[in-house]
Formats: sequence, structure tokens, C-alpha cells
Amino acid sequence: MCGFVGLVSDTPVAPALLLALQAIQHRGQDQAGLGTFDDRRLHLVKGDGLISQAIPPRAVPTLRGVAGIGHVRYPTAGSSFGPEDAQPFRTRQPGVLLAHNGNVTNVPELEAQLRADGWIVLSQCDAEPILLTFASALTKRRPAGHTRDDVAAAVEEVLDRVRGAFSVVAVLEVDGRPTLVGFRDRHGIRPGCYGRTPGGGWLASSESVALDVLGGEHVGDLPAGGFVMLRHGEEPVVVDLGRRAPKPCVFERIYFARPDSQLEDGRVNRQRWRLARQLAREWKRRGLEADLVIPVPDTSTPAAMAMAQELGIPTREGFIKNRYSGRTFIMPDQATREAALRLKLNPIREMFEGKRVLLVDDSIVRGTTMRRIVALIRRLGPVEVHLAVFSPAVTNPCFYGIDMPTRAELVAAGHAPDALEAALCRYFETESVTYLSLDGLRDVLSADVCDACFTGDYVVPVSAAERAAIEAERRA
Amino acid sequence: MCGFVGLVSDTPVAPALLLALQAIQHRGQDQAGLGTFDDRRLHLVKGDGLISQAIPPRAVPTLRGVAGIGHVRYPTAGSSFGPEDAQPFRTRQPGVLLAHNGNVTNVPELEAQLRADGWIVLSQCDAEPILLTFASALTKRRPAGHTRDDVAAAVEEVLDRVRGAFSVVAVLEVDGRPTLVGFRDRHGIRPGCYGRTPGGGWLASSESVALDVLGGEHVGDLPAGGFVMLRHGEEPVVVDLGRRAPKPCVFERIYFARPDSQLEDGRVNRQRWRLARQLAREWKRRGLEADLVIPVPDTSTPAAMAMAQELGIPTREGFIKNRYSGRTFIMPDQATREAALRLKLNPIREMFEGKRVLLVDDSIVRGTTMRRIVALIRRLGPVEVHLAVFSPAVTNPCFYGIDMPTRAELVAAGHAPDALEAALCRYFETESVTYLSLDGLRDVLSADVCDACFTGDYVVPVSAAERAAIEAERRA
Amino acid sequence: MCGFVGLVSDTPVAPALLLALQAIQHRGQDQAGLGTFDDRRLHLVKGDGLISQAIPPRAVPTLRGVAGIGHVRYPTAGSSFGPEDAQPFRTRQPGVLLAHNGNVTNVPELEAQLRADGWIVLSQCDAEPILLTFASALTKRRPAGHTRDDVAAAVEEVLDRVRGAFSVVAVLEVDGRPTLVGFRDRHGIRPGCYGRTPGGGWLASSESVALDVLGGEHVGDLPAGGFVMLRHGEEPVVVDLGRRAPKPCVFERIYFARPDSQLEDGRVNRQRWRLARQLAREWKRRGLEADLVIPVPDTSTPAAMAMAQELGIPTREGFIKNRYSGRTFIMPDQATREAALRLKLNPIREMFEGKRVLLVDDSIVRGTTMRRIVALIRRLGPVEVHLAVFSPAVTNPCFYGIDMPTRAELVAAGHAPDALEAALCRYFETESVTYLSLDGLRDVLSADVCDACFTGDYVVPVSAAERAAIEAERRA
Amino acid sequence: MCGFVGLVSDTPVAPALLLALQAIQHRGQDQAGLGTFDDRRLHLVKGDGLISQAIPPRAVPTLRGVAGIGHVRYPTAGSSFGPEDAQPFRTRQPGVLLAHNGNVTNVPELEAQLRADGWIVLSQCDAEPILLTFASALTKRRPAGHTRDDVAAAVEEVLDRVRGAFSVVAVLEVDGRPTLVGFRDRHGIRPGCYGRTPGGGWLASSESVALDVLGGEHVGDLPAGGFVMLRHGEEPVVVDLGRRAPKPCVFERIYFARPDSQLEDGRVNRQRWRLARQLAREWKRRGLEADLVIPVPDTSTPAAMAMAQELGIPTREGFIKNRYSGRTFIMPDQATREAALRLKLNPIREMFEGKRVLLVDDSIVRGTTMRRIVALIRRLGPVEVHLAVFSPAVTNPCFYGIDMPTRAELVAAGHAPDALEAALCRYFETESVTYLSLDGLRDVLSADVCDACFTGDYVVPVSAAERAAIEAERRA
Repeated sequence: MCGFVGLVSDTPVAPALLLALQAIQHRGQDQAGLGTFDDRRLHLVKGDGLISQAIPPRAVPTLRGVAGIGHVRYPTAGSSFGPEDAQPFRTRQPGVLLAHNGNVTNVPELEAQLRADGWIVLSQCDAEPILLTFASALTKRRPAGHTRDDVAAAVEEVLDRVRGAFSVVAVLEVDGRPTLVGFRDRHGIRPGCYGRTPGGGWLASSESVALDVLGGEHVGDLPAGGFVMLRHGEEPVVVDLGRRAPKPCVFERIYFARPDSQLEDGRVNRQRWRLARQLAREWKRRGLEADLVIPVPDTSTPAAMAMAQELGIPTREGFIKNRYSGRTFIMPDQATREAALRLKLNPIREMFEGKRVLLVDDSIVRGTTMRRIVALIRRLGPVEVHLAVFSPAVTNPCFYGIDMPTRAELVAAGHAPDALEAALCRYFETESVTYLSLDGLRDVLSADVCDACFTGDYVVPVSAAERAAIEAERRA
Repeated sequence: MCGFVGLVSDTPVAPALLLALQAIQHRGQDQAGLGTFDDRRLHLVKGDGLISQAIPPRAVPTLRGVAGIGHVRYPTAGSSFGPEDAQPFRTRQPGVLLAHNGNVTNVPELEAQLRADGWIVLSQCDAEPILLTFASALTKRRPAGHTRDDVAAAVEEVLDRVRGAFSVVAVLEVDGRPTLVGFRDRHGIRPGCYGRTPGGGWLASSESVALDVLGGEHVGDLPAGGFVMLRHGEEPVVVDLGRRAPKPCVFERIYFARPDSQLEDGRVNRQRWRLARQLAREWKRRGLEADLVIPVPDTSTPAAMAMAQELGIPTREGFIKNRYSGRTFIMPDQATREAALRLKLNPIREMFEGKRVLLVDDSIVRGTTMRRIVALIRRLGPVEVHLAVFSPAVTNPCFYGIDMPTRAELVAAGHAPDALEAALCRYFETESVTYLSLDGLRDVLSADVCDACFTGDYVVPVSAAERAAIEAERRA
Repeated sequence: MCGFVGLVSDTPVAPALLLALQAIQHRGQDQAGLGTFDDRRLHLVKGDGLISQAIPPRAVPTLRGVAGIGHVRYPTAGSSFGPEDAQPFRTRQPGVLLAHNGNVTNVPELEAQLRADGWIVLSQCDAEPILLTFASALTKRRPAGHTRDDVAAAVEEVLDRVRGAFSVVAVLEVDGRPTLVGFRDRHGIRPGCYGRTPGGGWLASSESVALDVLGGEHVGDLPAGGFVMLRHGEEPVVVDLGRRAPKPCVFERIYFARPDSQLEDGRVNRQRWRLARQLAREWKRRGLEADLVIPVPDTSTPAAMAMAQELGIPTREGFIKNRYSGRTFIMPDQATREAALRLKLNPIREMFEGKRVLLVDDSIVRGTTMRRIVALIRRLGPVEVHLAVFSPAVTNPCFYGIDMPTRAELVAAGHAPDALEAALCRYFETESVTYLSLDGLRDVLSADVCDACFTGDYVVPVSAAERAAIEAERRA
Repeated sequence: MCGFVGLVSDTPVAPALLLALQAIQHRGQDQAGLGTFDDRRLHLVKGDGLISQAIPPRAVPTLRGVAGIGHVRYPTAGSSFGPEDAQPFRTRQPGVLLAHNGNVTNVPELEAQLRADGWIVLSQCDAEPILLTFASALTKRRPAGHTRDDVAAAVEEVLDRVRGAFSVVAVLEVDGRPTLVGFRDRHGIRPGCYGRTPGGGWLASSESVALDVLGGEHVGDLPAGGFVMLRHGEEPVVVDLGRRAPKPCVFERIYFARPDSQLEDGRVNRQRWRLARQLAREWKRRGLEADLVIPVPDTSTPAAMAMAQELGIPTREGFIKNRYSGRTFIMPDQATREAALRLKLNPIREMFEGKRVLLVDDSIVRGTTMRRIVALIRRLGPVEVHLAVFSPAVTNPCFYGIDMPTRAELVAAGHAPDALEAALCRYFETESVTYLSLDGLRDVLSADVCDACFTGDYVVPVSAAERAAIEAERRA
């Protein structure tokens, strides 16, 4: 998973871009980068770590220019990225800066096409073939002095040739003016929005919270199967190039996006509240009972409040989370591993002893942490431990940009539907495990989402070879 | 503010000490150190930053020995500490490792006494004069082969000569065995406890959560005006040397200690729940009304739950806190400063617009952040903003180890009692400001606490000269 | 001043390139870089400092490929280079790696031309406009699948458009094979040679010592006004595109090149020996006398031997040079500055006391160090101090790549010829100052050199505007 | 091998100490440290690497005080020192700073004695037991307020208890004034001198060049079997405590000390000149002939001049040494290893081809580098290669502070005297190998030196156990 921001203004953008980028730091902590365009040059600083590490304060004044892009990158399983693989990327001819969030599934095919045209891909990052495909299409039309039509042709070539999910921002000169371009794959799987900033500028971003930080105003989503062109002091130009049925990612709503972000279907925390309320209703219908609703940190507190209200029983903070993560010097024995977990998440005895507790979490992927958490609280003498999850069971890997393990590692995969709960109760050592029903989920969400992780219905076809290549990389 | 752990066992202690120390990382993020004693040598690693920065993993195997001490240090206003000033400290003759939490108010006097005995203080840290006073007293009795009586004499000399608040752990050889010694000033102002670890070892720590992490069992508090001697496989030896009326710090209960810690008067989160419930009762008696209780992050969520329950109105998370702090490149203009605050703490419009909200916080010291928070939410169109604080007004600086500004900077200081609320409502732009009453506080807390910050009644006298010196340092 | 190496082979080149590059570390200690081409990608590592700092050992295995380029960069007065400005540079379309030694005098003009063609220059380094001019010319002929004729056209465009002195190596795919291309400006001002390496590979380098290190065999010089194309297992292809009168740099012979390097006119140390012998003859003709010839470290020992032999008087090492330079913490007073000089260069009393000494140096530019050296030895009681320099007086700045101060700072500039010695004797406090005559220099050197620094006759015209821009940058 | 400087003045000493220390950087490049005493505190900065790395400029102003000590440390084979093991060391009670050059052979015995007195040694460095023995003796006499007699008693205890070679400087308060104390073991094996600095201060140092740098005046050598007490504005107090026959180290004269240093028997470069002249006479007597004398870098150039003058044949620089060392990325094959050597030391073909060359070096220890050098020049077609060494054959390890391999690794050890040359000619591939005779050495040197490395006559007895322990460490 990744995140981006793009800004075009009439004053230097780097300080504001940096603030906006920090608002979406949760989308990636592995690498960060910031690039700007000052009419003569393309400036770029990128590196490993959090934004504050990758983009040192002394570098900000060197990032001159009134248009630019920032990016944060999530650690993807199995990859061995170096600083050169961080986004954004740039080309000298024509001068383009570009970053994206998503996952390209046909990288080898793109590289072969580019190689035939004389373009050499340098990095391991799938943003670079997107950029080169875009730049190559522009150059084919003319070497310099690009117009809106050139951009349309270049975006169309990307939509036609690049497979997978991608939400993209680019900065280049169009009609002789610094221009911010945003576009998404034809289904709009990954999020992206844009809005006005105080003073007549425009910000595009993976999430609307970046706009909030700058005191901006949300205007719309980045077009799927089309593009928006943004320039300081001008109204947005939106061009449609063949949109398909929108299929935004369900996992952004459940877990990934910040609760204060606005997606296509409204504020995220409101969706989560409603999902949790729906879960409470389904849970009640099962005839289960509990004394206390306890959220599993770090993000389930509001959902626990919603369930508690719906169920009419209290909610309490049963775990104290250590604000300081940091790596730990771990001895490879059972006692130390348990201590390391307790260091992250200390359960309070009084909240569990002699109680029937209902643990609430947003989703379960591998299940290994949940298993260890239940083991920890079992020692404190609870009467019953119930587990409720405000999303359906994850049974299929994501190929569109959410970092997930291979199918074999998904704890809920490979079970017959009617045997699933029994298997998980044994594994987690709980009295019950309740997932939100798929119908319940669809009832609550007004948008038609990509829910391939729950259903296996992949919006964009992924060939067996592509799937094998992606899974092999994740196992590495 | 600082925190320590000490461990004596019959196997190498460094890995377990490091885990235990990480459980109290919240007590100090400025420096950290770990020292051990292996019968022949005293090993020590200390440095700047978080534990993971100050004590690199590769250093852990060099910290040999079955007894040791860890320490974390809080950034104290106005001080310019270097890595050499980090705790623990050690002496070669006799071989002693020592760390403390607290504040010594008569350092210059101690240094003069030590100088006369030929001892040179090297650092800026007040743990060092405590150590040298202790070591000097031991040496005076005999150069080597120290016994329990020697330790008693040395602790007594520290209790007599060192003024202020101090909770201390030391490791040395007593009766030919590696021994962990813990003691506190005669009023026991700063916290400290000890307990058994699996396998027959003993851990002393600023807070009981360090015991939880190791799966240990809480046994008692470090003696005030006396000491406890802990050795692997032996029962604790507790010696009283003249305890005075216990006066544990009220601020640990309100804000500083982890909610899952046990202090003299029980679990901290229980105290906070009861303080908030008492605040709700007092608030209700004022005839005030609100639609929603909203906690001010990061630590007031349970208190908001308690108030909501007592008041019969709902509580919601109204602010989304950015999990990633990091320094920000700040341009010195109003817009950027506001953006930086919104980056830390983004208020959700729906929670405030058209509502009468009751903000809950644990305490208010300077008040500058609260003022900016209210300004931020005022933009979202609330009908009324009420502020309730589950502690009395802070009107006096702390000289016993809580890092606080000088009196002139305390927002609640210098007002006549009956003019305080009006002044603060003007300053914060709120409809009301409600502090917990001093009687309410005392009612809830079973312990007789040091509440000098609320009352100005200092347990241990601080001379005008000492006070001036400390305040001057804080202003620096 | 800078230096480069380029290697094409049939096995990975990075380890050998690194060794070869270290042989010319004396040509630049400010930055270093290494790039390779592996048929699919262009790999590049560059950074600040010595080679061992800029190219960490762990990076070498990532530099895959059978062709590559290395570069070292000298600190140029007044420039504020960042790591991005280090050489080599690369383009993705077409895939080219390039580095050079020299100085381009018309950078703004080149940038404007490139901008019009849609190419954006990113760095402050003049190698980049050379690369982009070359790459742009290639692309204009065809996007991919370049041939020898395309290379000829591209080199010709560089020779026509780029002004100044440049000795260039580039790696790209020609006729479908990895190819090393080398060329120089039409006068061949800066050095460059090539030769065979064991195993059928080819190395191009600023100096022949890089070939020595690899056990290679010197074959020829890089063509001036033409190019050589080198491929593993094939004979060199040399193409002439209009050479002018060769004017190799005299300063390489006198000071800059390593003594064991072979330039157009033979081994450098042999030239220096002959220059010193000629200087001895001219010195003798003046009727001067001395007891001892003393070389000024670090490079004049052989010249002192030559003079001593010709004059029939002994030579001794009169200064002990500290092998360890390192920066020094300098207090801004006279005593400390003098101590700092003595730290670098300690004169031995017995060598000077009561003696008539003849100091020998290769050249004098600013003269400030020489003045301080004489002041130091004056304290040791010499009877007479004579100074002899085996090059003529430097009276004009270099615009072709030797880092020199502006004219105003040259100690020998601005004096009438017959008043020069008297002025310098007063400034240096010596009994005499003897430069090698221009006729003597020309007699000794068989090649027709660029001696603009002695004569002001600039081989390639530098416009007044260009000259002003370069001097302004040096003063910065 | 190590080096030290100590300075007492009436102004801050750190800047001057740093300059003086840099003058002896050749004595150790592995670690460095600087400590000062400002009447109230002992300040200390030490670390790994060269002086400029270990003592960063920003640290210098924190090193307050008018008396202090600096130290550089040589990488000793087999040791795994950390930054804590760097010198100088200090004690708090009494306040003493101390550093030394030499080697203590009875460390375990000293540690046991100290442990019995309650003193714990912290580091792996033999300076610490010297310091603790000294400090412990002082404390036994009185805790504070030490006098000259206390110092005498403490130095005597060190002379009696510490075995091996040691040249020591210490700073402490004596008679209430900051005082620099210097002393050496009873045979004065390692060097040490002292002198006046401008302004009434005193400097003690391993070599006199440190005095030269400060513009100071050499007064005498540090007493062997006694001590000198130095205070600003007072005359030196020299106390004898039982000197034995002086036995200064011969290797300082031959190789280790700087040529511009003054040892007991005069300027080092004069001794080397005379040793080389004596070698020339002995070489001539063997009836050998050569065309050219060629010094093996880095330090044999003056010796080659001396031999050339005595033999009446010319000398030339035959090798060009790379001024930049740096680590190299080495592939483990023969070609790369040879390239790495040629990178360090490039032989010039014309100097060897068709010639009978006489290589001159100061000493041969392992012989591995010499063997590779000869192999390199053999490729250039010399007619004959002769090797002459201006010291006798090294056949025994040093236990007094010169870092040497174990006996098994000495190339000249284990041969019958009359079979040695034949064996070495085979090993080195030379026509002859000529060592300076032991009689010739003794004739030239006026001092009675420790020449155990040539003769096996160890001045201070080293027990079999101690010897085994030292050799084991070197093999590690």
C-alpha cells in the first residue's frame, strides 16, 4: 500500500506538500519522496524510512517550484527495494514527475514494450513503467510543447497497456504551464481525490485528510478511466476516456484509510460505525451474550462503542498499548516472545477476570497475533471469550495493492463455510467467532466495492502466470 | 521525569532488562542506558534517544552479568545534557551501578561535600552525587567486602544528605553476592515497586508494568526512608531507617503513570475512572448540559467513557490523532502552524457542527495547546464548547521531578479563585471551564498524596535559593 | 579537475573498475561514482567524498554488467555541488552512461537548446548537458537500435555545440552490443588514453596508471576531434571528425598527472626530471650558489635530485611531512596558525641552520603557503634562502578544467616582467626567485602544449561573458 | 604502539593539546582521546579512528581546563577494543587522568590485587590497571589533598607492581594545584620527553615533534624509575626512585619514531642516515654491485640517499606510492590481489628494466609485502635485484609495546645464521639479502638499546605463562 499527494500553486509548494504528505504517513512508512518542478528543473529527494528521515528539513529549500508530488511507500512482503526504487520518478525528456498507489500486474510485458522503443527501466518499482509508458506516448506525438490532447493520448495509452490497479498523479508542462494530472484505472480500485487549497491552488491526494491539513476543500475524486488536469487559478478540466463499473477497494473502508477521510461513499468512521452496528445486530441474533465489549487496539475503539451502544452493554479499554514501538532485542524462546507481545499490548486483569468478554476487531488476515492475544488474556481467568469482526472472512489474496500474504497463509481460507467457525474457535481458543455477513456488508456500504478478498471475484483479470509471479515474490 | 528498572537473577539479565525498560519508555524518551555487573566488571551502554537508539541490539551481548539496571530519561526544560549525563552511573571503587527517578534540590551542597572528600563529580546529572555520596559512605566503612550494615549506613547517609525526591536502584556486591538495592526518600514522593520474576529473580521498577511484561508478580513498594535488598533465590530484606508521612505524587495518578500500572493505592486506570466520575458529578451539579463527551487525545478516552456513563450522554472520538509524530518542517506563518496542529489532531466536522460538546482532559499546564485546539473546532460550528478537567488547577511548579514550567507560565496561576474560570473562558474561548475540586480529588484518592502543584504545600522544604536556581535552569 | 575510467569486458566490470578508479583518486577527492550497463538496466552509485566513502563495498555487487564507467571529482572553488551532481550521468531513452573531465564554457547556451527540444537538465554538473546533447542527437536519428553512424553523428553534434575542454567516455548499446565510446574536444586539451586489459577487454582512462593497475597495455590516446569505439574481443574503431592542432595541458605535465603516467609525450616523471635539469642549468647561469637542494613536499623530491645532480651539490629532505592530514580545530590566532602549518610540514633545524639552501617546487599559484614556509625556516637561521620553480610564472587563470583562482589572486600576475623577481623576493623573503623560462619549457617538452596559464593564449576562445560567469562562480 | 601528550598551562589547553597530538598521529590511528581537568571536573572525549574522527571539533570547547592529556592508539593484532577501551582513563576519587605507551605483561595479577582492594577494572586496556594502582596508592595515604610525597609513594607502587614497559603521563591536583606527572619504567624502554611551551606551560610527549609544533623547547626525557612533576610557572621537580640501566627501544630509532624527533641519542633521521651509511660500507665489503639505489616507500628515501652517496651510484624513486589508501573491494583471486598491491605501489618500468637494482628498506618483519614487491618488479625485466636492510634480522617478538607477530610469523626466525640469506633469497627471489650487522648497529648507536627483537635478550623478564597469554591474544 502507498499514498501520494500532488500540488500545483503559484508559490513554492514543497513546505505544504510535506505537511500534506505527513497526513497520509499511515499509508506507508518504508520510503518517502518529494519532487518539484520549477519551470527549468525537476528537483527530487527520496529515501528510506519515515518522511522525517527520508526528506531531511535541510533538503526542503532545494525543492524549488510551484508544482510537485510527494509519496510514501508501504513495506511490501518479499521485496528488496533500495532508495532508488522510492517514488516519485521523473524523466528528463519530456520532463515529467509521477507517483502512484496500486499494483501493476503486467510489469514484464511493459518492460519488453519499452525496451523495443529504446527506453530502459532502471528500478524495481512499478511506477517507473507507468511513467515511461506515459512519457514515451507523449514523445511519440511531439518532443516538446505538449497540449491537453497529447496528455489525453498518453493517459489513454497507459489505461490500455498497464494492467492492475493504479491511482496516479503526474506533474508536467502542458500548454506551457505547470500542470498537475491525476487519473485512475478504469475501475477506480485505489482511492484518489482532489480539491482546492486556499489561494487558488489544487491538491490531489490518496485521501482527503491531506486537504484538511492544508485547510482545503474537497471537490471530487480522481477520474477512473479518464483524467483531471489541474492548474493554479484555472478550473479543473475533467476528461473521460472510457470508465467501467466503479469498484473501489473495500479494505480502505474497513481498515486502511484514516477514519477522518472521505471516500466515494462518505466519511470512513461513519461507515465503520455502521458496519459495527450491523455486526452487533447479527451477533445478537445468534443469541450470544457478553458482559463487556473490548476493542482490540489500535483502531477498533469506535466500533466497540457502536457495538456496546447497540447491545446495551458497557465497553472498556482492556488493553494498554505501548505508544513506543521500536524494534526489540528478541531472544528466540517462548518466554521472551510472550514478553514482547505483552510489551506491545498489556491486558488489564480486572477487565477480563471472571467476565464474559466480546473482543472486537476490524479484520483478521493471518490470525497469528489474535491467537497470541487470546492466549494472553486466557491467563487472566475470563469466563468466556467471544470474537467479533466487522468484516467478512478474508479468503483470497489481493493483487491490487493491499499487502496481503499468499492464500496459504490466510487463516480463514481453505475451510468449508459451515466448518469455519469451529476451526477458528479451536485455533484462537474462543467460545465463538463472528464475522460480519457479506450481505450485511453490502447492505451497509452504498458503493459497489471490489471485495475480491472476501469473494475471489477479481475485477481486473490476473493471469495464472501473473498470479504465480506475484505470490512467488511475496513468499521470498 | 525518568524511569528505571533493576534486575537480579542467576542468568544473564540484559535481554530481560531491555524488555522491562521498554515497558516504561513513556517515562522518558530523551536518553536511555543499561548497565550490568558480572562479578568481575561493570558493563554500561548509554546514549541519546529512545531505548532502541541508545542501546543498539549489537551492544546487548556485551552487557554480561546476572544483575543490572536500566534507565530512561525525560527531556527536562532548559538542560543541555550530553550522552555522558545519561543514567545509570557507576563507580570503580567500590563497584556500584546506580540510577534514580526524581529531583535533587541541593546538588551544589553535595558537590562541595564530595570535593572535600576527594570525589570529583563528572556529569550534569543529579544521579551522580547520589551515587558518590553512597559510594563514599561505603568506602569510609571499608574498601571492599561490604555487608548489609555497610549498605544501611550508606543509604542512611544518602537519606540524611540528599534533599528532594528520589527513588533509587543500585547494584553492587554485598556479602560477596550480586545484590539489587532499592530505596526512596523519606516521603516516598516518586514511585517504585518490586516483585518476583519467574525463576527466582527480583525486579525493581518505577512502575509495575515492567513486572507484567516479564510475567512477574508484584510484591511491594520500594521502602521510603529505608531500603530493600534483593538477591536471587533469597527473600527480600527490608530495613526501615526512619520513614515519614508518605506523600506519593498526585500527578503520577492523573497523567504520568501508565493506566495499567499499580501504585500504592491500586490500578491507575481505576483511579482515573473514579476521578472522571467524580468530575461528572460536580459538573452535573453546576447545571451544565452537553450533547456529546469528547476526549482530548491521547489519554482521556476512558475518562470520557466514565463521564458519559455518569452523565447519560454519548461519547465519541472527535479527533483523529496522527500515529506518526516526527518533526515537521515549519514555516513561521499562522497558516502553517495551524496546519501542523491539524496534522497532529484532526477534528471531525460531524462531531462538532451544531453540537454542545464537552471536552475532557486530564490536566492543563501551560494551556497553549488547548487554546489552539478550541480555536480549531470553533471553525466547525459547535453551539457550545465546555471544558472539564479531572484534576484541580495547576498553580505551582513541581520541584520533585515532574518537568513543569515556571510559575509564570502556568495558565491557572496568578488568578483570584473566583476570577479563574472567567479568565480561562476568555483565554480558551469556551462556554465553561470546570476543574475537579480539591475536595473531590481527596475524596477519590485513598492515599495521602503530594499535591504541591495544586496547593503549594511542598513536602520537602525548598529554599528560596534552590528554587531560584531550578527556575533559572528551566528558563534557560 | 576530474578523472574517469571506462571498461568493457565479457565479465562483470565493477570490481576492476573500482581498482582502476582508485589509481586516479589524486584527480579528485570530492565526489565519486560508478555506473554499469547489464543489457537490461543501467546501475549507478555515486556520492560525496573519497571513492571508499562514495561507493561502499556492499554496493559493488549491485553494479551488474560487462560495461561501465567510474569518475572522481575535484573540489572546484565556489561550487555547491550535491550528491546528485556527481558523475557519471545516465539517460533512460536512449540508455547512455557518460562522464568527462574538463570544463564546458557555454552551459547556459546548451541548456536553452536542450530545453527547446524538451530535454530538462537536472543537475549543476556540465557533464549532463554533454550527455543530453549526445542522447538527443542519437534519438533524433532513431529511438532505438543505434549504429556506428548514429554515434558518429552524435559525437559530431557534441564537438560542434559544446565549447571548452572535454575528455569523455560513454557506455551504450551500439549494433546491439555493449560499447565503450571515448572522445575529446578538437584540441585534446585534457588527457585520455585507452588500452587492452588481460582477457580481451578495453579500458579508457584519464591516465595510463589505471591500465598499469589492471596489468593492461597502453594502446593509444582518446582521439581529439573524433572518437574510438571499444568492444570486448574486437579491435578498436577510430573515427576522425576534424581534429585541430593538439594542445595538451602543460599543467598535467608539471603538477597534476601522476609521475608514473604516460602522456602523449612520454612518462611524466621523465619530463619533470628534464624540466628540473633545465631549471638547474638556467639557475647556474645566473651565478647563484647554494649548499643544499631541498624539495618542498609533496612532489618535488625527484626534481630536487635532478637539480642536485646537475649542480653537483647534495639534496636532503629538509621537511618532514605529516602523513595524516585531517582537519584541525584552529583557533584564529597567529600562534595556532603557525602551529597548524608546522603540523603539516616540520622543517628540521640542522638542514637549514647556517646554510645557503635552494628550495625547489613545481609551481606557484597563490603563493600564500610558500610565504609561510619561508617564514618558518627563516627562524632556523639559514644564511640564504633561494627559491627555484620548474615552471614559468602562472599569470592567467585556466578555463579548461584546472581549478585555479581568479587572476587577482595569482601572486605572479600584474607585475612588469623585470619587476617580478624583486616583488616576489620581498613577498616571500627570499634572496632569489627563479622560474623556468618559457623557452626552456618549450625546449624540454616535445609536445605543443596549451600554456595559456603562462602566456594568456587561450586555445578555445572564451567570451568576455563566459569568462565573467566562470570567475564570478570561483569568487563565490 | 601508542603515543601521548600532556600539557599544563594557565589557559585552556584543549586546542593546543589537539595540535600536539596530531603531530604524533603516526604512533596510532585506531583510537584517540583527549581529557582535561578544570579544577572541578574531569572532561573526556574519546573514540575510534583518527584524531579528527574520534575528537570532533564541536567537542573541543567542552574540554575545559588548564591541564590535560591526549592519546592515540595503534591497532594491536588480535584485540577487540571498543571505544570504552580508548585512553586516557580517569578516576573520580581521587581525580586522576592517565595515559601511557607500552605494554603491561602482568595484567591478571594486577587485576586480582585491585579486586581485593575493592577496585573494579572496567576495560580491556592495560592503562586502566596502571591508573587504578596509582589511584589506589594515593587513596591509601589520604582521600584528598595529595602532596608530592603521596605522588612519590604512588609512582613507586606502580614501578614495583606493574611489569613490562610503560611511559606514563597523569594529570591530578597536587598541593592544591593542577599538576602534570610523567614517569617511565625503570629501564625507560618506551620514549617520553618534556619541554617548555611559550607562556610558561609544560608539555610532556612520546616524541619531541609535539613540542616543535607548539613552538616549544625540549628540556629532558621523562625519568625512568622516577618521575617529573610539572606545573605552570614552576621549574620541573625531578625525583629518582631507583633507575636501572637505560634500555631504550631500538625500533623507535629504525622505524617507528618520526625522523624529525629527538630521542635520548639525538635526531632520528641522523641515526638512520648513519645506519644506512654503515650498511653501505658493509654491503660494499661483500663485493656486490648495482646500478641504482631504490628506496622501498614510504620511509627509506633518506637512507637510499645516504647509501647512494657512500656507494657513488645514483638513487631514484622507483615506486610511485598512491597517496590515498582507503580500503579496497577485493575479489579473492590472484589477479585482483596483485592489482591491489600495484594500486598502493606502482613500479616504474624504466627504473628496473635492464638494471641491477639495490632495494633499501628499514626492516623486515613478516616479509610478505617484500616478497610481493619483488615479484612485481621481476616482471619489468631487471638484471639483478639486491635487497639491503639497515637493521639486523628480526628473530624475536616484542613484549614491550611494538606490535609484532608471533615468532612463527617472523620470516627471519628459525634459520641457522649461515643458512638465512640463502633461504631469504629463495623466498624473496633476490640475488642477495644484506642485513646490517649487530656490531654495525651497536657501533652507530651511541645509546645502549633494548634490542631483544634482534637478540632475544629481554630486559624485563616475561614469564612463560605471560608470553603464552600475549602470543595467544596476537593469534586471535
